[in-house]
Amino acid sequence: MVGAGQLARMTSQAAISLGVGFRVLACSATDSAAQVCAGTVTGDYTALPVLVAFAGACDVVTFDHEHVPAPHLAALEQAGRQVRPGAAALRYTQDKLAMRDRLRALGVPCPRYAPVTSVAEVTELAAGWGWPVVLKAVSGGYDGRGVWVCQTPAEAAAVLAHPVGVFAEEHVGFDAELAALVARSPHRQAAAYPVVQTIQRDGVCHEVLAPAPGLAAGRAIEAERIALELTAELGVTGLLAVEFFLTRDRLLVNELAMRPHNSGHWTIEGARTSQFEQHLRAVLDLPLGDPRLAAPHAVMANVFGGISPDIYSRYTHVMAADTGVKVHLYGKQVRPGRKIGHVTVIGGDVASLRDRAVRAAAYLATGNEESP
Amino acid sequence: MVGAGQLARMTSQAAISLGVGFRVLACSATDSAAQVCAGTVTGDYTALPVLVAFAGACDVVTFDHEHVPAPHLAALEQAGRQVRPGAAALRYTQDKLAMRDRLRALGVPCPRYAPVTSVAEVTELAAGWGWPVVLKAVSGGYDGRGVWVCQTPAEAAAVLAHPVGVFAEEHVGFDAELAALVARSPHRQAAAYPVVQTIQRDGVCHEVLAPAPGLAAGRAIEAERIALELTAELGVTGLLAVEFFLTRDRLLVNELAMRPHNSGHWTIEGARTSQFEQHLRAVLDLPLGDPRLAAPHAVMANVFGGISPDIYSRYTHVMAADTGVKVHLYGKQVRPGRKIGHVTVIGGDVASLRDRAVRAAAYLATGNEESP
Repeated sequence: MVGAGQLARMTSQAAISLGVGFRVLACSATDSAAQVCAGTVTGDYTALPVLVAFAGACDVVTFDHEHVPAPHLAALEQAGRQVRPGAAALRYTQDKLAMRDRLRALGVPCPRYAPVTSVAEVTELAAGWGWPVVLKAVSGGYDGRGVWVCQTPAEAAAVLAHPVGVFAEEHVGFDAELAALVARSPHRQAAAYPVVQTIQRDGVCHEVLAPAPGLAAGRAIEAERIALELTAELGVTGLLAVEFFLTRDRLLVNELAMRPHNSGHWTIEGARTSQFEQHLRAVLDLPLGDPRLAAPHAVMANVFGGISPDIYSRYTHVMAADTGVKVHLYGKQVRPGRKIGHVTVIGGDVASLRDRAVRAAAYLATGNEESP
Repeated sequence: MVGAGQLARMTSQAAISLGVGFRVLACSATDSAAQVCAGTVTGDYTALPVLVAFAGACDVVTFDHEHVPAPHLAALEQAGRQVRPGAAALRYTQDKLAMRDRLRALGVPCPRYAPVTSVAEVTELAAGWGWPVVLKAVSGGYDGRGVWVCQTPAEAAAVLAHPVGVFAEEHVGFDAELAALVARSPHRQAAAYPVVQTIQRDGVCHEVLAPAPGLAAGRAIEAERIALELTAELGVTGLLAVEFFLTRDRLLVNELAMRPHNSGHWTIEGARTSQFEQHLRAVLDLPLGDPRLAAPHAVMANVFGGISPDIYSRYTHVMAADTGVKVHLYGKQVRPGRKIGHVTVIGGDVASLRDRAVRAAAYLATGNEESP
C-alpha cells in the first residue's frame, strides 16, 4: 500500500488476520501505519524509482491516498505491475472535472457544474444557480482545502487568485449526506455495504450512522445501484466510496474515493467484514466477505485533536465511562482539529449510540466534559 | 511482550487500535508476530541481559508463553520493571506441582495427585485410583509434551526414565472440558468472559464453543467464581484461563494459563472486547472492556497443517464457500499437525456453526473436502 496514514494502519490490521504479507511505502517512520507495520519502506511516492522499487517487491500495489502522480501509475502498469485500482480508474479521483464529465456522460445525477477561469464566469453561473457557488479544485487545492463555498464574487475572486485549476458547482441545499461503499474484484465479484448517513460540519465528517436512519428503501437501493454501476463503468478494483447529497426529490453524486474511506470505519465492529479486509480481498482477487451489519446499528464518531496532547490519560476515562465504546487511535501527534482517531458503538438504538459515540469522541478530543 | 508466537501476533493487532506502542521480543525475525509487528526485537529470552535491555525500553512487560526462567522474572522485578503478570503469579504456570499444592491449600477442587519418582509409587497410587494414571511434568517436558496418560506400569516407567520431574494425577473420566477466561487489572478491576466448552483430541484443542452449550447456569457461575477467586488469590494481572473437567457431579481444575489462550480466540469476533485487547487493558491498568458475547454463539476451530504447504490457494475456496467464516492465519510454515491458524463463525445455531467452522478448518488444513 502506497501511503502510511490511518487507512494503511487499519488495513495492516486486516492483513495480519489474512496472513497476507503487507508492506507500506511511508514518507517517514513516524507515519501512522509505519509505527505498527513490520513491512514499512520509507521513500518519496512522487519519485518514480522509489515507486518502481517498492512495487517490484509486491504482488499487488494499492493506495492509502490519491496523490501518486498519474504518469507514475501508468508507468508501473506498463512495467507489468498489478496496480489496483488501476491508473484508468484512479484518474477520476485525481481529476474532479474529468470525474464530473464522466458521470454526466454516464447519466449519473450530480450537481450542475462548469469549468471556470474568471470571476465573470462564476457570476454568470450564479445568475442561474444563485449564490453561494461552490468552487472546487480540479486536483489538489491549497491550504489543505479543495472546496470553497463562495457567498460573493469577492470570495470567488479570492479563490481564483490562487494558481489552482477550479470548476464551479451549484450549491445543493440537501437534507442529508449519504455514502455508499462497494467493493469489486478482478473476478468482477461485487459486494455492497449498507448505505450510511454522514454528518459533516464545515466540510469535515464528524459522524457516520449505519445504516442511514429513516432512509427510504428505494433511495438506499438507488445509491447502492449507482455505486455498483460506477465500479463497473470506471473499472474500479478494490473499494469505491460514493458520497451523495440527498435532497427532497433527488440523489446527487458529490465525491468518489477508491480506497478505504472514513464513512466505512464503522465496519470494523459493525459489519461482518471490515472495509479494510474487504479492500485487501478485492485487490488480491480473493472472494469478497459478507458486508452485512453485525448489529442493528453502528455509529462512528471521529476524534479530533484539541489543545492538550495528553490523549492517553483521557482515554482511560472514556473506557471507564462506557465499556462498549471501541476506541481506535492512529498514533498521530495531536494538533488542534487534526483527525487522530475514531470511536465506534454498536447496538439497537441509534439515538443512544450517537449520544455515546459523540460524548466519547468529544471527551477524547478535549477532556472538557466530565472533567473533575 | 516476550515471545512472538500467534498470541503476540494477535495482541499486536489489538495494540494498533488502542494506539499503544507494542514491542515483541522474538527468537527470530520469522516468528509469527515478528513478521507483522514494527516493534520487533530479536533475542534470546533465556539470557537475562537480553531481557533487561528489552524491558528497559518498555513501560510494562508481559508474556506470550510461560518459558521465561523464574529467576529472570524476579531479577526484572527487583530492577523495578513492571512485570505483568508478576513472578509470584507466573510461578504457578511454571511449576505445576506448586500450582496443585496451592489449589489444594485454597480448597479449589482438582484431581487427586501426588509427587512420584518411581514406578512403585505410581503403581501404589493406581491401586487406589485405578489405571490409567496421568503423569505430568512439573515443568516443561520432552518431545514437545508434558502430559502422559499411562495405561500400565511399563508406560509409566518409560516416562520416568526421562530426566524430567513429574507428578501423578488420577485420570478423570469427564463429560466435557470447559474453560473460564477472566481478566484482572492492578486496580483490581475484573471481567469474566462466558464459560466455553473446549473439544480436545489427543490433548490438543480442536474446537471451542462459546458459550458452553447446555451448561447448567450454576456450573457456569461456579467456574467463573473459581477463576475470579484464583486471579485474586494468585495475584494475577492480565488474563487467567482456567481449564476444567466437568464430571457428572464435579468441576475440577485441570490447567491454568496467565496469558491470551486458545480457548479465547473466539472473542475476536464473538465478544465485544477481544481477549487480546483485554489482556493489554489489564496489564496496562486501563479500564477493562465489555466481555459479553457479540452474538448468541461463536465457534472457533483450529487449523492444523497438512501435507501440502499451499494454504493460500485453499483459503480462497473457504472464503468463497462461506462468506461468514473469519480466517486467521499465523504466518507459520506448514508442518503436519502444527497449529497454523484458526477460523471463527458467529451466529444463532451452534450445530450449524460447528459444522461450518470444522468444515472450513479441515479444508484449510488438507483441502481434501470438495477437492476438484
